[in-house]
Amino acid sequence: MAMQARANQHLETMNFLNEIASDYPKAISFASGRPSESLFQTKMWVDALPRYLEYFALQCGCSLQGATQRLSQYGRTGGLINELVASQLTKDEGISCSGQQIIITSGCQEAITLTIQALCGHATDVIIVRNPCYIGITGAAHGCGIDLVAIDPPPGQSYAQALEKLVKELKALGRTPRAFYLTADFDNPTGSVLSMADRLAILTTCATYRIALLEDNPYGMFCFDGDRLPPMAALDREGVVIYLGTYSKTICPALRIGCIVIPQRLFGDQVASQRLAADLTQRKSFLTVNTSQFNQAVVGGVLLLENCSLLRLAKEATDYYRRNRDVLLGSLANAFDILGDDIAWNCPSGGFFLTADLPFIFDRNEAIKCAEKFDVILMPMSFFTLDGSRKTSIRIAFSNLECAEITLGVERFSDFVRQHL
Amino acid sequence: MAMQARANQHLETMNFLNEIASDYPKAISFASGRPSESLFQTKMWVDALPRYLEYFALQCGCSLQGATQRLSQYGRTGGLINELVASQLTKDEGISCSGQQIIITSGCQEAITLTIQALCGHATDVIIVRNPCYIGITGAAHGCGIDLVAIDPPPGQSYAQALEKLVKELKALGRTPRAFYLTADFDNPTGSVLSMADRLAILTTCATYRIALLEDNPYGMFCFDGDRLPPMAALDREGVVIYLGTYSKTICPALRIGCIVIPQRLFGDQVASQRLAADLTQRKSFLTVNTSQFNQAVVGGVLLLENCSLLRLAKEATDYYRRNRDVLLGSLANAFDILGDDIAWNCPSGGFFLTADLPFIFDRNEAIKCAEKFDVILMPMSFFTLDGSRKTSIRIAFSNLECAEITLGVERFSDFVRQHL
Repeated sequence: MAMQARANQHLETMNFLNEIASDYPKAISFASGRPSESLFQTKMWVDALPRYLEYFALQCGCSLQGATQRLSQYGRTGGLINELVASQLTKDEGISCSGQQIIITSGCQEAITLTIQALCGHATDVIIVRNPCYIGITGAAHGCGIDLVAIDPPPGQSYAQALEKLVKELKALGRTPRAFYLTADFDNPTGSVLSMADRLAILTTCATYRIALLEDNPYGMFCFDGDRLPPMAALDREGVVIYLGTYSKTICPALRIGCIVIPQRLFGDQVASQRLAADLTQRKSFLTVNTSQFNQAVVGGVLLLENCSLLRLAKEATDYYRRNRDVLLGSLANAFDILGDDIAWNCPSGGFFLTADLPFIFDRNEAIKCAEKFDVILMPMSFFTLDGSRKTSIRIAFSNLECAEITLGVERFSDFVRQHL
Repeated sequence: MAMQARANQHLETMNFLNEIASDYPKAISFASGRPSESLFQTKMWVDALPRYLEYFALQCGCSLQGATQRLSQYGRTGGLINELVASQLTKDEGISCSGQQIIITSGCQEAITLTIQALCGHATDVIIVRNPCYIGITGAAHGCGIDLVAIDPPPGQSYAQALEKLVKELKALGRTPRAFYLTADFDNPTGSVLSMADRLAILTTCATYRIALLEDNPYGMFCFDGDRLPPMAALDREGVVIYLGTYSKTICPALRIGCIVIPQRLFGDQVASQRLAADLTQRKSFLTVNTSQFNQAVVGGVLLLENCSLLRLAKEATDYYRRNRDVLLGSLANAFDILGDDIAWNCPSGGFFLTADLPFIFDRNEAIKCAEKFDVILMPMSFFTLDGSRKTSIRIAFSNLECAEITLGVERFSDFVRQHL
């Protein structure tokens, strides 16, 4: 049977992240999965705001000064730049949608909170996640008093099979699974990608049991090797996927701009889609009123300057993150060649994260020892599991480090591992 | 006995506001209490961001480019500009506090939601409001599943007496009142001011029963006549007041910057304050991660340019709003002189709102008739009461209209009233 969330697991993880970084400021940190500041196009943003104002003035049929004043006011709860975002999602992600299906949010975290609140109205409602999973969903669910249950298919079982089995178990217990939250591409914390077969089978299972698929897609644009698979929202034919987007990784986190994309016909029902949109909008109005129109204007201006596609910007970032991954893989191979099969890692084909499996338990105490004595910070994977499993695994974030730091950090970590063995 | 919130009353009100404005776009609207765009210092904001960046670079000991990159990242959940905000609150509001007591929020609405969530952990917990009250608290409470109860003291009874009576009634029912939410200065929707005696007596009652006083203060800086009374947070000696601030009216709404100020010793207990601060911060991290650092930088820059006081900016706005109030009072006197005592109104000494009492019921249908046939929009006061009372009162928002519109709008409204009689 599936696992219930450990109370406050996400808080422990958050606190650990905050504390260890400030307790060991000189350590090389593989803990934080932030985008690299070196990629921020700060000069472009200076041009983006006037570009959007020009566009907005034309839309409103008023002067630039009038457009500036209007932009500075309260605004539509659902957002201002919805059509531009819809164009970008259609072009870059293959998600054909209109601005009316979109709600602009104060970052993707608000999108997660609003969506799970709107979907789970009863105490018996449940959200399904994968194990391990992103702490943003664990924290949001805890904050809203919504129960999470995780699937963790054993070898030979697919995600769709595990999902179906879990749904039946939950229903037998009188619980109603309302949504399945996942990141299909370059998942945080594992760096893994769902196969095409898994995507299609999960969509079918979700449609059968009327479970919304919450697709969180912060890393999809950063694909290192070969062609990307389409996001699940682009494959959805049954109105199953509620897509959660963000510009924090492609533009920058300080804008706090995310979005929710509601399918045109939720489980085939257009009225249900409209009801969900209205519910989400009203919830947002009492959570944050509306999303900063200045920040929306910066994103809108970047989209206008880039012809509604972020592929050009993402290309540079992808090259940067790929190089980091390659340096990390090379460093791991160099450092651990003599250990053979005792330590293993995946080769993430995109995103910010790599998973490694150690021949011993790596928990909070080990992480602190490693930071204290070897000046390198790594995250125990068990921090991201609902049941505390994956005790010997670690998450290695490689997005916000220089190459030399990665090499040195891996050397230090290999000293720790060697001493441990 | 007190009144429970009518389910979805805030949603009806919101929907009415949105619909009537779009259904009658040519009508003069006294419905929306927005600040006037004409007051926005858009030119100043262009200087504010570089001013803050300079300050931030100095603080971080890095280059301007480095400061810009760092600002563009994720940031501290509790905020970046806390010390500047603390200085402004100390100077302008007489609220002596440090940055550590402050959490910067994505607008004051997030501050309200976070605070009531943190204070009300049990199903038996209750928030007390005044009747009528701001729909932002009604909506937030509904969204969080928290019960509201209102006090509405009859003539001869003070707020403190009504509060004490209600607290005893609630406790007898097994309910725990956790907080009393109010706007002491130029309240939305009534435009009224709590007397000094009321402020002090309410603080004492709150301290006695360990009820947090949530002071929402969007309008306090706009005092038209004589000297302002101190905010309740400035009078608080027992650690009772949790202050909710906003820059939406003094700078502009599009920044979405608000704050929570936690007393240094909550009910005399410093550890309780620290626990509350930690709880609020963690809740915020799973609601919106952190508040946009760009927008914080604009507010920070304005504060630096203005020597941490908004009095100069508020002076111009106060003159504008006072003039609007005077035109409104004059127009009402002109239009209704022959009706004598049948229609009466208060004289708000600050803020954005005036209350008028009519000799007939003014409900949703009347408001629509008035908009449709007389091209003027007014808000039934019953939309803001938890029990649907105040059926013959209206809220007149005068903040975002030109003088000529106010005069013409009141003339139209007086035609409606005359026809009605």
